[in-house]
Amino acid sequence: MDEMTFLNGGITSAKGFRTAGVEAGVKYAQRRDVALILADVPCVTAGVFTTNRVAAAPVVVDREKLAATPRSQAIVVNTGCANACTGAQGLADARAIADASAKLLGLDPSLVLVSSTGVIGTLLPVDRIIAGVEKAKAALAVGDIPNEQAACAIMTTDTVQKRAAVQVTIDGKVVTLGGMCKGAGMIEPMMATMLAYVTTDAAVDATWLQSALKAAADVSFNRVVVDGDESTNDTLICMASGLAGNTTIDGNHPDAEKFLAALKAVCTNLAKQIVMDGEGVSKFVTVKVRGARDTGDAHLVARAIARSPLVKTSWFGLDPNWGRVICATGYSGAEVDERLVRIYYGGICAYDCGRVADEATLAQMTEIMRERSFEVVVDLGLGEGEDTIYTCDFTFDYVKINAEYTT
Amino acid sequence: MDEMTFLNGGITSAKGFRTAGVEAGVKYAQRRDVALILADVPCVTAGVFTTNRVAAAPVVVDREKLAATPRSQAIVVNTGCANACTGAQGLADARAIADASAKLLGLDPSLVLVSSTGVIGTLLPVDRIIAGVEKAKAALAVGDIPNEQAACAIMTTDTVQKRAAVQVTIDGKVVTLGGMCKGAGMIEPMMATMLAYVTTDAAVDATWLQSALKAAADVSFNRVVVDGDESTNDTLICMASGLAGNTTIDGNHPDAEKFLAALKAVCTNLAKQIVMDGEGVSKFVTVKVRGARDTGDAHLVARAIARSPLVKTSWFGLDPNWGRVICATGYSGAEVDERLVRIYYGGICAYDCGRVADEATLAQMTEIMRERSFEVVVDLGLGEGEDTIYTCDFTFDYVKINAEYTT
Repeated sequence: MDEMTFLNGGITSAKGFRTAGVEAGVKYAQRRDVALILADVPCVTAGVFTTNRVAAAPVVVDREKLAATPRSQAIVVNTGCANACTGAQGLADARAIADASAKLLGLDPSLVLVSSTGVIGTLLPVDRIIAGVEKAKAALAVGDIPNEQAACAIMTTDTVQKRAAVQVTIDGKVVTLGGMCKGAGMIEPMMATMLAYVTTDAAVDATWLQSALKAAADVSFNRVVVDGDESTNDTLICMASGLAGNTTIDGNHPDAEKFLAALKAVCTNLAKQIVMDGEGVSKFVTVKVRGARDTGDAHLVARAIARSPLVKTSWFGLDPNWGRVICATGYSGAEVDERLVRIYYGGICAYDCGRVADEATLAQMTEIMRERSFEVVVDLGLGEGEDTIYTCDFTFDYVKINAEYTT
Repeated sequence: MDEMTFLNGGITSAKGFRTAGVEAGVKYAQRRDVALILADVPCVTAGVFTTNRVAAAPVVVDREKLAATPRSQAIVVNTGCANACTGAQGLADARAIADASAKLLGLDPSLVLVSSTGVIGTLLPVDRIIAGVEKAKAALAVGDIPNEQAACAIMTTDTVQKRAAVQVTIDGKVVTLGGMCKGAGMIEPMMATMLAYVTTDAAVDATWLQSALKAAADVSFNRVVVDGDESTNDTLICMASGLAGNTTIDGNHPDAEKFLAALKAVCTNLAKQIVMDGEGVSKFVTVKVRGARDTGDAHLVARAIARSPLVKTSWFGLDPNWGRVICATGYSGAEVDERLVRIYYGGICAYDCGRVADEATLAQMTEIMRERSFEVVVDLGLGEGEDTIYTCDFTFDYVKINAEYTT
């Protein structure tokens, strides 16, 4: 097997991981709201967290633990309460949940990580969450049902649970990576907390895993998510059990690139699921920028287009309004010469270095925009810089969901 | 008279200016779409234009003219077509309109400026606009009716015409400043073209007027308008006829600050009218940031809050969702310590250095948010930096207007 194979899997697809998602009554009755991921052995662990200056208590705690030792064996996640802006009490609560869970699971507290998502500014119901962890411990299992229940137990405004898994061969051993995530923000998805967990049975060097996870985040979650627009709780954690039997992967391993590609594939697949489930989304749009002076410029342009409410509402309105696209391109901060710019909707040219598509061609583009998913390409004609961002339109339902979701 | 007096006036309130707004059939029948401002004498003139790399032809032409000589005597404005992304033909068209208008008005072409607003990427109907200027010349007058007709003739999706005027005393002479503007973007208003014109009868030094106009723009149009998010056509022009009889105002004039305050007042009044008329707006919100490390940080925070779709939809939903405000504060890029932050809605504290308002207090804030206009204050508790941005909520109607406004 030289290629990567996508599986219908999740957080327990890799060897050595069990999971459960249970009802703990964190905020609402009769919904799964506490998830537990438990590994059979201590795992090499990497984490990428929010860059928001206002970081939630669980983010502070996990950062501290992974900085001290890049290892973990369990993660406890709750939805319904973000434990953000909760001060010293919030930190104490996050630590109390980790400590109590460690005791229940017979682990050293340093090996238990915690995540929270939900409303900012309210305190965690610590006892109910610990009771939930006890219930989850009893339900721990491998397979589709626990994968799905755990993925459901981390959702907030998500409408579907989100999972992905791939297999690759490393040293002739089958290595599996599986994951789950939640997130359903739209214009600036990171403002609605994004939580993502990836497990693998590969043996991986801790330092290399941290840099690989950062690289994977950069082409996946950071490509649906404009850098810097991050919630207080955003978290991406990767646990590697080492049970696949390969020699430890680091930068010198011949299959390092193959593992990295698999990690990127799982993360990108999960990230795209977040956009697809964006609040009120009706269109999934891939914005590709090429011909920029450099990669930084390409990113500025892609980000400006993907963030522009005027562009996003035009997608919702099936209007190939390239004027709004070139306008966002112009104010992005990137080097732009409108005489060299080409703009395409689904491969059809709307604006070609000053020449404008006619009505019939614009009508063709409108047809393409009727699809659930389409591509907008901007070629700046200046250099080799390119970037891709996955984004979505801006709809009535987005406003409705966010106007009605109350504190 | 030591104070500033607001008048019910407009672009002809200052001595030496006449105006007209006429139907020229630029894009639609039976609507005023060409405005002409004519001064009795050549005027000292300053201009502030879009920083968008993709600048419309009229912006290119006006910039060139004012760089060569900071004087003008007439401005021709059309709505219905932006003359942006129209290449060499667009530039030739803008010059042809200025030249033909100069001939009609008996002026040197260097003294005639042009502005356009409307759809990007279509060519101007040059002949119809020149015919419109001829019609406008015949209608030129002073007073409420021409002021209103000119202000209407520059509107696009604006629902109301926008004018302002003030008087101050300089050297014992009454000096009047009057203006009009158009613009009705919402989240990023500069993407929907903002055009503003201010006339005054003060005698003003050209170099000083340019710096004064920039300073006035910074506290007005750039405070409803996030820096850098500018349309291809944004324009603010100030013409000074000098007919008030004062000694020429420059940086050393004892009343320089008084004139600057009046210029800022007219610009701020016009800028607020743009927000009030924002597309689909139901709330006018003043975001005040204080206690920032410096002014730059205060601006970052105010801008992040004013731009956040999650914050803006919460305003629409009458939800004092301070969690979204502190989240935007945290990712703004400014120095933030959540333990020192205070957040107020209409003077009532929602978040006080970690203490959170109770349900009854939140209900009071919801009452305040029922008003058409309210204030959100964020005190970072770190230093002396402060900034204010005027902004609005994000509604169903915004999506509707922008999804249905087609190329």
